[in-house]
Amino acid sequence: MSSPPLSPDELEVRLRAIGAERYHDKHPFHRLLHGGQLSLGQVQAWALNRYVYQAAIPRKDAALLARTEDRALRREWRGRIVDHDGDAHDEGGIERWLRLTDGLGLDRAYVVSQRGALPATRFAAEAYVRFVAERPTLEAVASSLTELFAPAIHAERIAGLLANYRFIDERLVAYFRRRLDQAPRDVTFALSYVREHARTPEQQAAALRALEFKTEVLWAQLDALHFAYVEPGLVPPGAFRPEC
Amino acid sequence: MSSPPLSPDELEVRLRAIGAERYHDKHPFHRLLHGGQLSLGQVQAWALNRYVYQAAIPRKDAALLARTEDRALRREWRGRIVDHDGDAHDEGGIERWLRLTDGLGLDRAYVVSQRGALPATRFAAEAYVRFVAERPTLEAVASSLTELFAPAIHAERIAGLLANYRFIDERLVAYFRRRLDQAPRDVTFALSYVREHARTPEQQAAALRALEFKTEVLWAQLDALHFAYVEPGLVPPGAFRPEC
Repeated sequence: MSSPPLSPDELEVRLRAIGAERYHDKHPFHRLLHGGQLSLGQVQAWALNRYVYQAAIPRKDAALLARTEDRALRREWRGRIVDHDGDAHDEGGIERWLRLTDGLGLDRAYVVSQRGALPATRFAAEAYVRFVAERPTLEAVASSLTELFAPAIHAERIAGLLANYRFIDERLVAYFRRRLDQAPRDVTFALSYVREHARTPEQQAAALRALEFKTEVLWAQLDALHFAYVEPGLVPPGAFRPEC
Repeated sequence: MSSPPLSPDELEVRLRAIGAERYHDKHPFHRLLHGGQLSLGQVQAWALNRYVYQAAIPRKDAALLARTEDRALRREWRGRIVDHDGDAHDEGGIERWLRLTDGLGLDRAYVVSQRGALPATRFAAEAYVRFVAERPTLEAVASSLTELFAPAIHAERIAGLLANYRFIDERLVAYFRRRLDQAPRDVTFALSYVREHARTPEQQAAALRALEFKTEVLWAQLDALHFAYVEPGLVPPGAFRPEC
């Protein structure tokens, strides 16, 4: 009954197909964002919600370190925590994200408190942290493979934001510029890891499902933003209400 | 600087005020549902998504049992697991919910698999389970207090569903009829517990915040349903698509 396992190349094709179908570059919210069709208030809502996700990423990566006995994997993976939290030489991705929210006129303490974020954003970000903490290491690594698809959206975002919004300048897109370098390096390792460790049909199905799960985490955040701030535009009780 | 604690009665007033402001009976999706303005497909989408939440509830209650040393609390609380999972004398709330989804023409295996549910629904339901597993017992108990507000919405739902949808009859609303009896009994205990154990201003603030959190869990599920199946009606990749 059971099919033979895919070759590593076949597995990679299937992984990439998930991006082609389900990555959040297809979400209408991103088309509006990159096309200059949002108000400052809507861009603020996006940035302060996305902060919740950014802030969860180093915890997600630490959860992977915390559950694997594979020292080589830990050595490689811990660089991601540095990328986001920074060190003596680099402020880190979260600080770069806060320079974006600063530049959009949002109060930094309010952004960091996450008080104005949509509950759905928090639920999705935590679901990702839990997934990585609880699922087998292979699935935890596979769930990071949305980075395969990130450079294209980041390049499009940088160009779109700079071209279309008078309130966005080069300083504000520093986060995305840096990710253009970081994400390909990270994903090269993660993809090799998955190609090597997903050997049985069951492991391969689990790796594919893990990547699908991650696309759901990203997509659900945009659904919530779109619902609250675009159409029908119903902000849940207690969440950020744009003034502009 | 710190204010004195509220009296138990004052605390109860504040808890009830959260319901008046934030309980999901105010969500437009419920107005459409109860007012007969949804198609069969939209009601199916609601029922199969809400199944995910129903199915998480006994795990949530078990998480509370699993983390408290208070035997009296465990003895009382375990009845909730029986209510949902059933016993020799009663099929239980989850089975009653599945009779609703059966009656709406949904395949039971599909519903139980949760494959068609919105990711946002799963994230919200799991956030609730995690909250109860990880937060102090007082907050775990306080998060159940949305049951203070449930009888009114259940009564309204029973009447609205029966009056407005030809495909809904008495058998399908059995879940809600039973909850009219169960919820007040449960909430009497939980409210007494919170009144008694939330003594300091910090504990009281935490209890109030726990109830707010729970209203967010419920509200976010309706936001996701409304977004996918009402307006703008963008079903995420892989989720249930109504045929009717």
